[in-house]
Amino acid sequence: MTAQAPAIVLVEPQLGENIGMAARAMLNSGLTDLRLVRPRDGWPNEKALLAASGATAVIERARVCQTLVEAISDCHVVFATTYRQRELHKRIVTPRQAMGEARQGLAAGTRTAVLFGPERTGLWSDDVAAAHAILTIPMNPAFPSLNLAQAVGIVAYEWFQSGEETPPVRWERGDSQPAKQEEFRALLATLEALLDDAGFFFPPEKRQIMWHNLQAFLARAEPSSQEVGTLFGAIKALSGLRARAKPH
Amino acid sequence: MTAQAPAIVLVEPQLGENIGMAARAMLNSGLTDLRLVRPRDGWPNEKALLAASGATAVIERARVCQTLVEAISDCHVVFATTYRQRELHKRIVTPRQAMGEARQGLAAGTRTAVLFGPERTGLWSDDVAAAHAILTIPMNPAFPSLNLAQAVGIVAYEWFQSGEETPPVRWERGDSQPAKQEEFRALLATLEALLDDAGFFFPPEKRQIMWHNLQAFLARAEPSSQEVGTLFGAIKALSGLRARAKPH
Repeated sequence: MTAQAPAIVLVEPQLGENIGMAARAMLNSGLTDLRLVRPRDGWPNEKALLAASGATAVIERARVCQTLVEAISDCHVVFATTYRQRELHKRIVTPRQAMGEARQGLAAGTRTAVLFGPERTGLWSDDVAAAHAILTIPMNPAFPSLNLAQAVGIVAYEWFQSGEETPPVRWERGDSQPAKQEEFRALLATLEALLDDAGFFFPPEKRQIMWHNLQAFLARAEPSSQEVGTLFGAIKALSGLRARAKPH
Repeated sequence: MTAQAPAIVLVEPQLGENIGMAARAMLNSGLTDLRLVRPRDGWPNEKALLAASGATAVIERARVCQTLVEAISDCHVVFATTYRQRELHKRIVTPRQAMGEARQGLAAGTRTAVLFGPERTGLWSDDVAAAHAILTIPMNPAFPSLNLAQAVGIVAYEWFQSGEETPPVRWERGDSQPAKQEEFRALLATLEALLDDAGFFFPPEKRQIMWHNLQAFLARAEPSSQEVGTLFGAIKALSGLRARAKPH
Protein backbone atom coordinates (compact mmCIF):
# COMPACT_ATOMS: atom_id res chain seq x y z
CA MET A 1 0.00 0.00 0.00
CA THR A 2 2.72 2.39 -1.08
CA ALA A 3 1.82 6.00 -1.67
CA GLN A 4 3.42 5.63 -5.10
CA ALA A 5 1.33 2.62 -6.12
CA PRO A 6 -0.64 3.18 -9.34
CA ALA A 7 -3.55 5.60 -9.37
CA ILE A 8 -6.77 4.29 -10.88
CA VAL A 9 -8.49 7.00 -12.93
CA LEU A 10 -12.11 6.54 -13.96
CA VAL A 11 -13.04 8.97 -16.71
CA GLU A 12 -16.74 9.92 -16.68
CA PRO A 13 -17.91 6.78 -14.88
CA GLN A 14 -21.67 6.36 -15.17
CA LEU A 15 -22.79 3.95 -12.45
CA GLY A 16 -22.09 4.48 -8.76
CA GLU A 17 -22.20 0.70 -8.29
CA ASN A 18 -19.26 0.31 -10.65
CA ILE A 19 -17.26 2.99 -8.85
CA GLY A 20 -17.92 1.23 -5.55
CA MET A 21 -17.07 -2.22 -6.87
CA ALA A 22 -13.92 -0.83 -8.47
CA ALA A 23 -12.89 0.67 -5.12
CA ARG A 24 -13.46 -2.66 -3.40
CA ALA A 25 -11.42 -4.53 -6.03
CA MET A 26 -8.66 -1.94 -5.68
CA LEU A 27 -8.40 -2.39 -1.93
CA ASN A 28 -8.44 -6.19 -2.34
CA SER A 29 -5.13 -5.71 -4.12
CA GLY A 30 -3.78 -2.93 -1.93
CA LEU A 31 -4.53 0.01 -4.24
CA THR A 32 -6.04 3.08 -2.59
CA ASP A 33 -5.56 5.99 -4.98
CA LEU A 34 -8.84 6.48 -6.87
CA ARG A 35 -9.46 9.51 -9.06
CA LEU A 36 -12.72 10.35 -10.78
CA VAL A 37 -13.08 12.67 -13.75
CA ARG A 38 -16.61 14.12 -14.04
CA PRO A 39 -18.56 11.18 -12.52
CA ARG A 40 -21.98 11.29 -14.20
CA ASP A 41 -24.08 11.23 -11.03
CA GLY A 42 -21.92 13.66 -9.05
CA TRP A 43 -20.01 13.03 -5.87
CA PRO A 44 -20.32 11.78 -3.15
CA ASN A 45 -22.45 8.92 -4.43
CA GLU A 46 -24.42 6.79 -1.99
CA LYS A 47 -24.51 3.79 -4.35
CA ALA A 48 -20.75 3.85 -4.72
CA LEU A 49 -20.28 3.79 -0.96
CA LEU A 50 -22.69 0.87 -0.62
CA ALA A 51 -21.11 -1.17 -3.42
CA ALA A 52 -17.65 -0.59 -1.97
CA SER A 53 -18.65 -3.05 0.78
CA GLY A 54 -16.19 -1.82 3.36
CA ALA A 55 -13.60 -0.22 1.08
CA THR A 56 -14.82 3.05 2.56
CA ALA A 57 -11.36 4.57 2.84
CA VAL A 58 -10.85 4.35 -0.93
CA ILE A 59 -14.21 6.01 -1.62
CA GLU A 60 -13.67 8.74 0.96
CA ARG A 61 -10.19 9.55 -0.31
CA ALA A 62 -11.24 9.52 -3.98
CA ARG A 63 -10.27 12.74 -5.78
CA VAL A 64 -12.84 14.23 -8.11
CA CYS A 65 -11.53 16.34 -10.99
CA GLN A 66 -13.08 18.28 -13.82
CA THR A 67 -10.40 17.36 -16.35
CA LEU A 68 -8.22 14.35 -17.02
CA VAL A 69 -5.15 16.58 -17.20
CA GLU A 70 -5.84 17.77 -13.65
CA ALA A 71 -6.44 14.20 -12.45
CA ILE A 72 -3.09 12.88 -13.61
CA SER A 73 -0.87 15.95 -13.32
CA ASP A 74 1.36 14.40 -10.62
CA CYS A 75 1.74 11.06 -12.45
CA HIS A 76 4.66 10.14 -14.70
CA VAL A 77 3.52 7.19 -16.77
CA VAL A 78 0.02 6.82 -18.18
CA PHE A 79 -1.64 3.64 -19.44
CA ALA A 80 -4.94 3.98 -21.27
CA THR A 81 -7.14 0.89 -20.92
CA THR A 82 -8.97 0.10 -24.13
CA TYR A 83 -9.90 -2.93 -26.17
CA ARG A 84 -10.68 -1.14 -29.42
CA GLN A 85 -7.93 -0.75 -31.98
CA ARG A 86 -7.09 2.91 -32.52
CA GLU A 87 -5.41 4.31 -35.55
CA LEU A 88 -2.41 5.30 -33.49
CA HIS A 89 1.18 4.26 -33.54
CA LYS A 90 1.40 3.09 -29.98
CA ARG A 91 2.64 0.35 -27.71
CA ILE A 92 -0.03 -2.12 -26.49
CA VAL A 93 0.67 -4.01 -23.28
CA THR A 94 -1.07 -6.68 -21.22
CA PRO A 95 -2.15 -5.89 -17.62
CA ARG A 96 0.66 -8.14 -16.39
CA GLN A 97 3.27 -6.25 -18.40
CA ALA A 98 1.89 -2.84 -17.41
CA MET A 99 1.80 -3.62 -13.70
CA GLY A 100 5.27 -5.19 -13.90
CA GLU A 101 6.52 -1.93 -15.35
CA ALA A 102 4.67 0.09 -12.71
CA ARG A 103 6.24 -2.04 -9.98
CA GLN A 104 9.71 -1.52 -11.47
CA GLY A 105 9.04 2.21 -11.64
CA LEU A 106 8.35 2.35 -7.90
CA ALA A 107 12.05 2.12 -7.10
CA ALA A 108 12.73 5.16 -9.27
CA GLY A 109 9.83 7.07 -7.71
CA THR A 110 7.76 6.86 -10.89
CA ARG A 111 4.03 7.16 -10.34
CA THR A 112 1.75 5.35 -12.78
CA ALA A 113 -1.83 6.20 -13.71
CA VAL A 114 -4.19 3.71 -15.35
CA LEU A 115 -7.13 5.26 -17.20
CA PHE A 116 -10.52 3.63 -17.68
CA GLY A 117 -13.25 5.17 -19.85
CA PRO A 118 -17.02 5.44 -19.40
CA GLU A 119 -18.95 2.14 -19.35
CA ARG A 120 -20.77 2.68 -22.61
CA THR A 121 -18.12 4.16 -24.87
CA GLY A 122 -14.71 3.55 -23.35
CA LEU A 123 -12.00 6.20 -23.48
CA TRP A 124 -12.10 8.93 -26.08
CA SER A 125 -9.32 8.82 -28.64
CA ASP A 126 -8.12 12.20 -27.37
CA ASP A 127 -7.43 10.67 -23.96
CA VAL A 128 -5.70 7.65 -25.50
CA ALA A 129 -3.45 9.68 -27.81
CA ALA A 130 -1.41 11.32 -25.03
CA ALA A 131 -1.02 8.14 -22.96
CA HIS A 132 2.33 6.36 -23.02
CA ALA A 133 0.85 3.01 -23.88
CA ILE A 134 -2.43 1.22 -24.41
CA LEU A 135 -3.37 -1.41 -21.84
CA THR A 136 -5.51 -4.15 -23.36
CA ILE A 137 -6.91 -6.99 -21.27
CA PRO A 138 -6.72 -10.18 -23.36
CA MET A 139 -10.25 -11.44 -23.86
CA ASN A 140 -12.56 -13.67 -25.82
CA PRO A 141 -12.88 -11.68 -29.08
CA ALA A 142 -16.46 -12.91 -29.45
CA PHE A 143 -17.50 -11.22 -26.17
CA PRO A 144 -15.10 -8.50 -25.12
CA SER A 145 -17.64 -6.42 -23.19
CA LEU A 146 -15.93 -6.28 -19.82
CA ASN A 147 -17.60 -4.69 -16.81
CA LEU A 148 -15.72 -1.58 -15.61
CA ALA A 149 -15.16 -2.91 -12.09
CA GLN A 150 -13.98 -6.26 -13.48
CA ALA A 151 -11.43 -4.44 -15.64
CA VAL A 152 -10.19 -2.47 -12.63
CA GLY A 153 -10.15 -5.71 -10.63
CA ILE A 154 -7.95 -7.51 -13.15
CA VAL A 155 -5.46 -4.63 -13.37
CA ALA A 156 -5.40 -4.38 -9.55
CA TYR A 157 -4.95 -8.15 -9.27
CA GLU A 158 -1.95 -7.98 -11.60
CA TRP A 159 -0.56 -5.14 -9.49
CA PHE A 160 -0.73 -7.32 -6.39
CA GLN A 161 0.68 -10.29 -8.30
CA SER A 162 3.62 -8.22 -9.54
CA GLY A 163 4.82 -7.75 -5.97
CA GLU A 164 3.50 -10.99 -4.61
CA GLU A 165 5.72 -13.64 -3.11
CA THR A 166 3.01 -16.33 -2.89
CA PRO A 167 4.43 -19.48 -4.45
CA PRO A 168 2.14 -21.03 -7.09
CA VAL A 169 1.83 -24.13 -4.88
CA ARG A 170 1.84 -24.27 -1.09
CA TRP A 171 0.75 -26.92 1.37
CA GLU A 172 -1.69 -26.30 4.14
CA ARG A 173 -0.98 -28.72 6.97
CA GLY A 174 -3.11 -27.64 9.86
CA ASP A 175 -1.33 -28.93 12.97
CA SER A 176 -0.21 -32.10 11.26
CA GLN A 177 3.37 -33.27 10.93
CA PRO A 178 4.66 -35.30 7.99
CA ALA A 179 4.80 -38.99 8.91
CA LYS A 180 8.22 -40.47 9.59
CA GLN A 181 9.11 -43.38 7.34
CA GLU A 182 9.12 -45.53 10.47
CA GLU A 183 5.37 -44.90 10.87
CA PHE A 184 4.55 -45.10 7.17
CA ARG A 185 6.43 -48.37 6.65
CA ALA A 186 4.75 -49.92 9.71
CA LEU A 187 1.39 -49.06 8.15
CA LEU A 188 2.45 -50.69 4.86
CA ALA A 189 3.64 -53.83 6.64
CA THR A 190 0.39 -54.19 8.60
CA LEU A 191 -1.72 -53.55 5.52
CA GLU A 192 0.21 -56.06 3.45
CA ALA A 193 -0.12 -58.75 6.12
CA LEU A 194 -3.86 -58.15 6.57
CA LEU A 195 -4.49 -58.18 2.82
CA ASP A 196 -2.51 -61.40 2.55
CA ASP A 197 -4.63 -62.97 5.28
CA ALA A 198 -7.75 -61.80 3.49
CA GLY A 199 -6.68 -63.40 0.21
CA PHE A 200 -6.69 -60.05 -1.55
CA PHE A 201 -3.60 -60.71 -3.67
CA PHE A 202 -5.06 -62.90 -6.38
CA PRO A 203 -3.95 -64.27 -8.78
CA PRO A 204 -0.49 -64.77 -7.23
CA GLU A 205 1.42 -63.60 -10.35
CA LYS A 206 -0.30 -60.19 -10.01
CA ARG A 207 0.71 -59.89 -6.36
CA GLN A 208 3.74 -57.70 -6.92
CA ILE A 209 2.14 -55.20 -9.27
CA MET A 210 -1.02 -54.96 -7.11
CA TRP A 211 1.02 -54.23 -4.02
CA HIS A 212 3.26 -51.74 -5.87
CA ASN A 213 0.24 -49.82 -7.09
CA LEU A 214 -1.30 -49.66 -3.62
CA GLN A 215 1.96 -48.45 -2.11
CA ALA A 216 2.35 -45.81 -4.81
CA PHE A 217 -1.16 -44.53 -4.13
CA LEU A 218 -0.58 -44.29 -0.39
CA ALA A 219 2.79 -42.59 -0.82
CA ARG A 220 1.47 -40.09 -3.39
CA ALA A 221 -0.79 -38.47 -0.81
CA GLU A 222 2.21 -37.94 1.50
CA PRO A 223 0.19 -38.80 4.64
CA SER A 224 0.85 -36.96 7.86
CA SER A 225 1.68 -38.69 11.11
CA GLN A 226 -1.95 -38.28 12.24
CA GLU A 227 -3.26 -39.66 8.96
CA VAL A 228 -1.09 -42.76 9.26
CA GLY A 229 -2.69 -43.30 12.65
CA THR A 230 -6.18 -42.85 11.19
CA LEU A 231 -5.43 -45.25 8.34
CA PHE A 232 -4.12 -47.83 10.82
CA GLY A 233 -7.37 -47.58 12.71
CA ALA A 234 -9.53 -47.75 9.59
CA ILE A 235 -7.68 -50.78 8.22
CA LYS A 236 -7.89 -52.65 11.51
CA ALA A 237 -11.58 -51.80 11.86
CA LEU A 238 -12.32 -53.12 8.36
CA SER A 239 -10.25 -56.22 8.96
CA GLY A 240 -12.00 -56.87 12.30
CA LEU A 241 -15.33 -56.43 10.55
CA ARG A 242 -14.40 -59.05 7.97
CA ALA A 243 -13.12 -61.38 10.70
CA ARG A 244 -16.36 -60.98 12.64
CA ALA A 245 -18.49 -61.35 9.51
CA LYS A 246 -16.69 -64.50 8.41
CA PRO A 247 -18.04 -67.18 10.80
CA HIS A 248 -21.65 -66.47 9.88
CA MET B 1 -14.45 -22.36 -25.90
CA THR B 2 -13.76 -26.05 -25.58
CA ALA B 3 -16.46 -28.28 -24.16
CA GLN B 4 -13.84 -29.50 -21.68
CA ALA B 5 -12.91 -26.05 -20.40
CA PRO B 6 -13.38 -25.68 -16.63
CA ALA B 7 -16.87 -25.64 -15.13
CA ILE B 8 -17.61 -22.80 -12.73
CA VAL B 9 -19.70 -24.03 -9.82
CA LEU B 10 -21.44 -21.51 -7.58
CA VAL B 11 -22.57 -23.15 -4.36
CA GLU B 12 -25.65 -21.48 -2.84
CA PRO B 13 -25.10 -18.12 -4.51
CA GLN B 14 -27.24 -15.43 -2.88
CA LEU B 15 -27.48 -12.51 -5.29
CA GLY B 16 -28.75 -12.82 -8.84
CA GLU B 17 -26.58 -9.84 -9.79
CA ASN B 18 -23.47 -11.77 -8.80
CA ILE B 19 -24.53 -14.81 -10.82
CA GLY B 20 -25.08 -12.59 -13.83
CA MET B 21 -21.81 -10.71 -13.46
CA ALA B 22 -20.00 -14.02 -12.97
CA ALA B 23 -21.54 -15.32 -16.22
CA ARG B 24 -20.44 -12.19 -18.06
CA ALA B 25 -16.89 -12.48 -16.70
CA MET B 26 -16.83 -16.15 -17.68
CA LEU B 27 -17.80 -15.43 -21.28
CA ASN B 28 -15.24 -12.60 -21.44
CA SER B 29 -12.66 -15.34 -21.00
CA GLY B 30 -14.37 -17.98 -23.11
CA LEU B 31 -15.88 -20.05 -20.28
CA THR B 32 -19.48 -21.16 -20.76
CA ASP B 33 -20.12 -24.01 -18.34
CA LEU B 34 -21.91 -22.54 -15.30
CA ARG B 35 -23.43 -24.76 -12.62
CA LEU B 36 -25.50 -23.54 -9.69
CA VAL B 37 -26.09 -25.48 -6.49
CA ARG B 38 -29.26 -24.36 -4.68
CA PRO B 39 -29.26 -20.68 -5.76
CA ARG B 40 -30.98 -18.80 -2.92
CA ASP B 41 -33.54 -16.96 -5.03
CA GLY B 42 -34.42 -19.88 -7.30
CA TRP B 43 -33.93 -20.17 -11.01
CA PRO B 44 -34.38 -18.64 -13.58
CA ASN B 45 -33.47 -15.32 -12.02
CA GLU B 46 -34.32 -12.09 -13.83
CA LYS B 47 -31.59 -10.10 -12.07
CA ALA B 48 -28.97 -12.62 -13.14
CA LEU B 49 -30.05 -12.33 -16.77
CA LEU B 50 -29.92 -8.53 -16.59
CA ALA B 51 -26.51 -8.42 -14.93
CA ALA B 52 -25.10 -10.87 -17.48
CA SER B 53 -25.23 -7.98 -19.98
CA GLY B 54 -25.36 -10.10 -23.09
CA ALA B 55 -23.80 -13.29 -21.75
CA THR B 56 -27.27 -14.76 -22.16
CA ALA B 57 -26.04 -18.08 -23.50
CA VAL B 58 -24.14 -18.79 -20.29
CA ILE B 59 -27.18 -18.00 -18.15
CA GLU B 60 -29.54 -20.03 -20.32
CA ARG B 61 -27.25 -23.04 -20.34
CA ALA B 62 -26.55 -22.89 -16.60
CA ARG B 63 -27.28 -26.20 -14.85
CA VAL B 64 -29.08 -26.01 -11.52
CA CYS B 65 -28.45 -28.85 -9.07
CA GLN B 66 -29.65 -29.74 -5.60
CA THR B 67 -26.31 -31.13 -4.44
CA LEU B 68 -22.67 -30.35 -5.10
CA VAL B 69 -21.99 -34.02 -5.78
CA GLU B 70 -24.55 -33.97 -8.59
CA ALA B 71 -23.13 -30.72 -9.97
CA ILE B 72 -19.61 -32.04 -10.39
CA SER B 73 -20.20 -35.75 -11.02
CA ASP B 74 -18.74 -35.60 -14.57
CA CYS B 75 -15.65 -33.60 -13.55
CA HIS B 76 -12.26 -35.09 -12.72
CA VAL B 77 -10.34 -32.42 -10.84
CA VAL B 78 -11.92 -30.11 -8.27
CA PHE B 79 -10.50 -26.83 -6.95
CA ALA B 80 -12.24 -25.24 -3.98
CA THR B 81 -11.85 -21.45 -3.91
CA THR B 82 -11.36 -20.15 -0.41
CA TYR B 83 -9.27 -17.57 1.36
CA ARG B 84 -9.68 -18.89 4.87
CA GLN B 85 -7.13 -21.31 6.25
CA ARG B 86 -8.71 -24.70 6.94
CA GLU B 87 -7.33 -27.27 9.30
CA LEU B 88 -6.74 -29.64 6.43
CA HIS B 89 -3.66 -31.18 4.95
CA LYS B 90 -4.10 -29.91 1.43
CA ARG B 91 -2.38 -28.31 -1.50
CA ILE B 92 -3.06 -24.55 -1.97
CA VAL B 93 -2.60 -23.12 -5.44
CA THR B 94 -2.83 -19.69 -7.06
CA PRO B 95 -5.42 -19.07 -9.81
CA ARG B 96 -2.57 -19.01 -12.34
CA GLN B 97 -1.29 -22.39 -11.21
CA ALA B 98 -4.78 -23.92 -11.10
CA MET B 99 -5.72 -22.75 -14.56
CA GLY B 100 -2.34 -23.80 -15.93
CA GLU B 101 -3.04 -27.28 -14.60
CA ALA B 102 -6.57 -27.24 -16.01
CA ARG B 103 -5.18 -26.24 -19.41
CA GLN B 104 -2.65 -29.05 -19.30
CA GLY B 105 -5.40 -31.47 -18.32
CA LEU B 106 -7.37 -30.59 -21.47
CA ALA B 107 -5.06 -32.69 -23.64
CA ALA B 108 -5.74 -35.73 -21.46
CA GLY B 109 -9.50 -35.09 -21.52
CA THR B 110 -9.54 -34.06 -17.85
CA ARG B 111 -12.43 -31.80 -16.91
CA THR B 112 -11.87 -29.33 -14.09
CA ALA B 113 -14.45 -27.81 -11.75
CA VAL B 114 -13.81 -24.66 -9.72
CA LEU B 115 -16.06 -24.22 -6.69
CA PHE B 116 -17.10 -20.88 -5.19
CA GLY B 117 -19.08 -20.62 -1.97
CA PRO B 118 -21.94 -18.33 -0.90
CA GLU B 119 -21.14 -14.60 -0.71
CA ARG B 120 -21.45 -14.29 3.04
CA THR B 121 -19.79 -17.44 4.32
CA GLY B 122 -17.71 -18.96 1.55
CA LEU B 123 -17.53 -22.72 1.04
CA TRP B 124 -18.37 -25.09 3.85
CA SER B 125 -15.47 -27.17 5.11
CA ASP B 126 -17.31 -30.30 3.99
CA ASP B 127 -17.16 -29.09 0.41
CA VAL B 128 -13.50 -28.15 0.71
CA ALA B 129 -12.41 -31.46 2.24
CA ALA B 130 -13.15 -33.59 -0.82
CA ALA B 131 -11.64 -31.14 -3.33
CA HIS B 132 -8.24 -31.96 -4.80
CA ALA B 133 -6.76 -28.60 -3.95
CA ILE B 134 -7.59 -25.23 -2.48
CA LEU B 135 -7.51 -22.27 -4.84
CA THR B 136 -6.61 -19.06 -3.04
CA ILE B 137 -6.52 -15.72 -4.83
CA PRO B 138 -3.57 -13.75 -3.46
CA MET B 139 -4.93 -10.60 -1.85
CA ASN B 140 -4.31 -7.73 0.49
CA PRO B 141 -4.56 -9.51 3.88
CA ALA B 142 -6.03 -6.34 5.40
CA PHE B 143 -9.04 -6.47 3.04
CA PRO B 144 -9.59 -9.91 1.57
CA SER B 145 -13.35 -9.54 1.07
CA LEU B 146 -13.56 -10.26 -2.64
CA ASN B 147 -16.83 -9.96 -4.53
CA LEU B 148 -18.02 -13.34 -5.88
CA ALA B 149 -18.12 -12.18 -9.50
CA GLN B 150 -14.66 -10.61 -9.17
CA ALA B 151 -13.31 -13.92 -7.90
CA VAL B 152 -14.88 -15.77 -10.84
CA GLY B 153 -13.54 -13.05 -13.15
CA ILE B 154 -9.97 -13.49 -11.94
CA VAL B 155 -10.06 -17.27 -12.26
CA ALA B 156 -11.63 -16.95 -15.74
CA TYR B 157 -9.02 -14.35 -16.71
CA GLU B 158 -6.24 -16.74 -15.70
CA TRP B 159 -7.92 -19.47 -17.73
CA PHE B 160 -7.83 -17.27 -20.82
CA GLN B 161 -4.26 -16.20 -20.05
CA SER B 162 -3.15 -19.82 -19.73
CA GLY B 163 -3.99 -20.42 -23.38
CA GLU B 164 -3.31 -16.93 -24.60
CA GLU B 165 -0.73 -16.14 -27.19
CA THR B 166 -0.89 -12.34 -26.78
CA PRO B 167 2.66 -11.12 -26.33
CA PRO B 168 3.13 -8.86 -23.28
CA VAL B 169 4.07 -6.01 -25.63
CA ARG B 170 2.73 -5.35 -29.11
CA TRP B 171 2.76 -2.29 -31.31
CA GLU B 172 -0.32 -0.80 -32.82
CA ARG B 173 0.64 0.98 -36.03
CA GLY B 174 -2.58 1.97 -37.74
CA ASP B 175 -1.74 2.25 -41.44
CA SER B 176 1.70 3.67 -40.76
CA GLN B 177 4.96 2.18 -41.99
CA PRO B 178 8.21 2.43 -40.09
CA ALA B 179 10.37 5.23 -41.51
CA LYS B 180 13.34 4.23 -43.63
CA GLN B 181 16.65 5.49 -42.31
CA GLU B 182 16.87 7.56 -45.50
CA GLU B 183 13.83 9.56 -44.35
CA PHE B 184 14.81 9.70 -40.69
CA ARG B 185 18.37 10.85 -41.40
CA ALA B 186 17.11 13.53 -43.79
CA LEU B 187 14.92 14.85 -40.97
CA LEU B 188 17.90 14.88 -38.61
CA ALA B 189 20.07 16.74 -41.14
CA THR B 190 17.42 19.38 -41.77
CA LEU B 191 16.76 19.83 -38.07
CA GLU B 192 20.45 20.14 -37.28
CA ALA B 193 20.94 22.77 -39.98
CA LEU B 194 17.92 24.80 -38.89
CA LEU B 195 18.93 24.67 -35.22
CA ASP B 196 22.43 25.77 -36.23
CA ASP B 197 21.00 28.73 -38.14
CA ALA B 198 18.88 29.62 -35.16
CA GLY B 199 21.85 29.65 -32.78
CA PHE B 200 20.33 26.86 -30.66
CA PHE B 201 23.60 25.03 -29.98
CA PHE B 202 25.08 27.23 -27.33
CA PRO B 203 27.61 27.17 -25.71
CA PRO B 204 29.64 25.52 -28.51
CA GLU B 205 31.30 22.98 -26.20
CA LYS B 206 27.85 21.60 -25.35
CA ARG B 207 26.94 21.26 -29.04
CA GLN B 208 27.72 17.56 -29.35
CA ILE B 209 25.91 16.39 -26.22
CA MET B 210 22.87 18.58 -26.98
CA TRP B 211 22.59 17.16 -30.46
CA HIS B 212 23.15 13.56 -29.27
CA ASN B 213 20.37 13.92 -26.73
CA LEU B 214 17.95 15.31 -29.29
CA GLN B 215 18.74 12.51 -31.73
CA ALA B 216 18.32 9.90 -29.01
CA PHE B 217 14.91 11.32 -28.11
CA LEU B 218 13.74 11.30 -31.74
CA ALA B 219 15.03 7.78 -32.35
CA ARG B 220 13.49 6.40 -29.16
CA ALA B 221 9.98 7.04 -30.42
CA GLU B 222 10.75 5.04 -33.60
CA PRO B 223 8.79 7.44 -35.81
CA SER B 224 6.82 6.13 -38.75
CA SER B 225 7.28 7.36 -42.29
CA GLN B 226 4.20 9.55 -41.90
CA GLU B 227 5.42 10.96 -38.61
CA VAL B 228 8.77 11.91 -40.14
CA GLY B 229 6.79 13.85 -42.74
CA THR B 230 4.74 15.55 -40.03
CA LEU B 231 7.84 16.45 -38.03
CA PHE B 232 9.48 17.88 -41.19
CA GLY B 233 6.45 20.08 -41.67
CA ALA B 234 6.29 21.14 -38.02
CA ILE B 235 10.00 22.01 -37.91
CA LYS B 236 9.83 23.98 -41.12
CA ALA B 237 6.71 25.81 -39.94
CA LEU B 238 8.39 26.78 -36.66
CA SER B 239 11.55 27.81 -38.42
CA GLY B 240 9.66 29.85 -41.07
CA LEU B 241 7.71 31.52 -38.29
CA ARG B 242 10.92 32.51 -36.58
CA ALA B 243 12.49 33.62 -39.88
CA ARG B 244 9.44 35.72 -40.67
CA ALA B 245 9.28 37.15 -37.17
CA LYS B 246 12.95 38.17 -37.22
CA PRO B 247 12.98 41.27 -39.47
CA HIS B 248 10.50 43.10 -37.25
